[in-house]
Amino acid sequence: MNEKTIPYKIYLEESEMPKQWYNVRADMKNKPAPLLNPGTLAPMTAEELGHVFCDELVAQELDDTTRFIDIPAEIRDFYKMYRPSPLVRAYCLEKKLQTPAKIYYKFEGNNTSGSHKLNSAIAQAYYAKKQGLKGVTTETGAGQWGTALSMACSYFDLDCKVYMVKVSYEQKPFRREVMRTYGASVTPSPSETTEVGRKILAEHPGTSGSLGCAISEAVEAATSAEGYRYVLGSVLNQVLLHQSVIGMETKAALDKYEITPDIIIGCAGGGSNLGGLISPFMGEKLRGEKDYRIIAVEPASCPSFTRGRYAYDFCDTGKVCPLAKMYTLGSGFIPSANHAGGLRYHGMSSTLSQLYDDGLMEAVSVEQTSVFEAAEQFARVEGILPAPESSHAIRVAIDEALKCKETGEEKTIVFGLTGTGYFDMVAYEKYNNGEMSDYIPTDEELAAGFAGLPKVE
Amino acid sequence: MNEKTIPYKIYLEESEMPKQWYNVRADMKNKPAPLLNPGTLAPMTAEELGHVFCDELVAQELDDTTRFIDIPAEIRDFYKMYRPSPLVRAYCLEKKLQTPAKIYYKFEGNNTSGSHKLNSAIAQAYYAKKQGLKGVTTETGAGQWGTALSMACSYFDLDCKVYMVKVSYEQKPFRREVMRTYGASVTPSPSETTEVGRKILAEHPGTSGSLGCAISEAVEAATSAEGYRYVLGSVLNQVLLHQSVIGMETKAALDKYEITPDIIIGCAGGGSNLGGLISPFMGEKLRGEKDYRIIAVEPASCPSFTRGRYAYDFCDTGKVCPLAKMYTLGSGFIPSANHAGGLRYHGMSSTLSQLYDDGLMEAVSVEQTSVFEAAEQFARVEGILPAPESSHAIRVAIDEALKCKETGEEKTIVFGLTGTGYFDMVAYEKYNNGEMSDYIPTDEELAAGFAGLPKVE
Repeated sequence: MNEKTIPYKIYLEESEMPKQWYNVRADMKNKPAPLLNPGTLAPMTAEELGHVFCDELVAQELDDTTRFIDIPAEIRDFYKMYRPSPLVRAYCLEKKLQTPAKIYYKFEGNNTSGSHKLNSAIAQAYYAKKQGLKGVTTETGAGQWGTALSMACSYFDLDCKVYMVKVSYEQKPFRREVMRTYGASVTPSPSETTEVGRKILAEHPGTSGSLGCAISEAVEAATSAEGYRYVLGSVLNQVLLHQSVIGMETKAALDKYEITPDIIIGCAGGGSNLGGLISPFMGEKLRGEKDYRIIAVEPASCPSFTRGRYAYDFCDTGKVCPLAKMYTLGSGFIPSANHAGGLRYHGMSSTLSQLYDDGLMEAVSVEQTSVFEAAEQFARVEGILPAPESSHAIRVAIDEALKCKETGEEKTIVFGLTGTGYFDMVAYEKYNNGEMSDYIPTDEELAAGFAGLPKVE
Repeated sequence: MNEKTIPYKIYLEESEMPKQWYNVRADMKNKPAPLLNPGTLAPMTAEELGHVFCDELVAQELDDTTRFIDIPAEIRDFYKMYRPSPLVRAYCLEKKLQTPAKIYYKFEGNNTSGSHKLNSAIAQAYYAKKQGLKGVTTETGAGQWGTALSMACSYFDLDCKVYMVKVSYEQKPFRREVMRTYGASVTPSPSETTEVGRKILAEHPGTSGSLGCAISEAVEAATSAEGYRYVLGSVLNQVLLHQSVIGMETKAALDKYEITPDIIIGCAGGGSNLGGLISPFMGEKLRGEKDYRIIAVEPASCPSFTRGRYAYDFCDTGKVCPLAKMYTLGSGFIPSANHAGGLRYHGMSSTLSQLYDDGLMEAVSVEQTSVFEAAEQFARVEGILPAPESSHAIRVAIDEALKCKETGEEKTIVFGLTGTGYFDMVAYEKYNNGEMSDYIPTDEELAAGFAGLPKVE
């Protein structure tokens, strides 16, 4: 195909949008390890999970054999309001880098949640509504997931209770107000509204909160109220399933123009974006049909893949959630205070952990000043102001493109641009003022995190 | 055409994007009045304007006969990074309102400047670069225009000096940081860096600045430095010309699906969005080919169309700019402190003023609490969190759709959704907390503004 015919932005037609999600677990020989009951250490049953999660989502969580799952029409209608997202050819970045590489990015930031999180939020809200629930609870850090869930709940007329990490609640009032505009109630965590919150406050009176702690509160709030369930924006198998819409669209857009990527890059916190983006490509790889280099990019300050242990761990600080087998830094690990943006969860999706452990993907860690340098370079030529999280992928995409410049290889690089940075200007300001620093945890700090891992097996 | 075949979002192909801007003045029998030299009261010559503006932009400003002007390839390439913008069918809003009306909106917020302002910013930066200039100066209030210009200048490697109204500089640090990320220098206005700034500071030591004052400073900064020119984001004919890309795309998208609008609605501050959106439709109306209801929506707190005088007035507070004939509240008019968001300029585009005076369009004013009510209603069903400015158009689109509900008419309504409200959460917070109020200036207050009008004719 003549290169000239590839537009700046490839938009699928509405009729070309995926009608099914792809469940990569169906093609995995080594399935991700099951969630365990933290008391009995037996695999969690659907009934046990049903106290916390919506029934249909539990079924999706446990289903590791069905390859394709229909996207309900109501969800597809909502997707049509902000999807298909564009697959963008980064012509201007290529020119700036003077690289022979061809760079594409799948941009998920063109919706009010500012990120890909909405893809799963709307699905989870739909199933909650279908089950006749009154509402859902969740936690949020920087606020992308909370915003997405607020939008989704507003659409389906569900109550939405968000526990927002206290430091973010205070420092990111704008995100909080977006959620309130969509009708959500937002509580700073830890709070006096839950038993676990009161306990944490008693033990650490001045705490500014953490994601793990907010998860504990949200789970308690869901399980102690009639007609509520808890929903989570990353890590879980069901979330990766919903996010497969990113990869399905990306693949359809590439196929339409007969483009085969060599390298696929995504940032990785809990794994929702990366897992979604790579899923159909990983499927081909698992079935032996094609090969791709797949690279997970994580912050050097929270390096679960590159320096973590592959072990069963608690998903939350309060230890009220099931145990998950994953690459983890230990549920007590909290990234250094100088860490800006998200990607700060201590663990990683069980599915991605298994794929990584099986050598099917690579992982690299990058330091945040180099990430913001890439973000600025990208913004200035491609226009879009990227989220700090997304900029981890930009950093490595640029690095790979510069390697191509040295070798002269015309590789095709695809990366996930998960969202925009409009609510991250405090971090950008630090970078603009030359006040941003890097921090790599010492081996001793990591060892302290590993010491808290539960004894399983 | 079967309704079912109209997608949620109509995207033109890259090949269908406009290659020319449309100059509505060419079809006007009564041309907009010329800019006057404030000293001699004679029409400004190209030479005089050339001291302030780029040569090619001066030519566009004065050209009221050429119907179509080619969009240079470099600008079209930049447009491809964020255009075509979608024309969205508001299926969910229609359903929520239970109206038989068909509502479409042209969404210009999917770029980092967050609004349509980028359409003209990139054009003005291009002509500045082509002329071999070092840089440009401008003013910005809330920061949408300043952000757009920063992005455009970064793309063409031009220096960009932004004078930002001091109150916004202090209260909207995030916008400021976006501009800095794109390499612009941002100075709070009034400042000590210009003569006019020093004079205003001496007279009003504690002033928090105004748009008119920042314009004066930016013009002085441009005319007193070698290789600089001043650029403006609204009001001027050249800006309406560049913004015609909005209307051209809208019309092409509607034509593609054989849709004829009955009502076209846009918010109006200086007129850049409204003028651009309506231009090709107004052209048909001027040529007697078709008829449309065209409605300008302005804030009740800054009602230049609905309560202003059609007269020559100063464009800026410092009175360093040419005089323009326009609907105006007087250059000394400043909206009440409780006015949130933009649309606060005292005057209105000369072109739109003439069209309005000729009865070719209507104007209505709306109060801000009703505007935020519409914004919230829209956000909750259509997903997008709208800018306060854009929400003026939403308000009237909803009102017109509700009238259709009463009468049973299936009118087709098109409105301009100029941008997103991510940087306006302080205003949303006020609304969420029930602390937002309305203010309609009294006749006496308006009379005070009119008293400052220059004596011309």
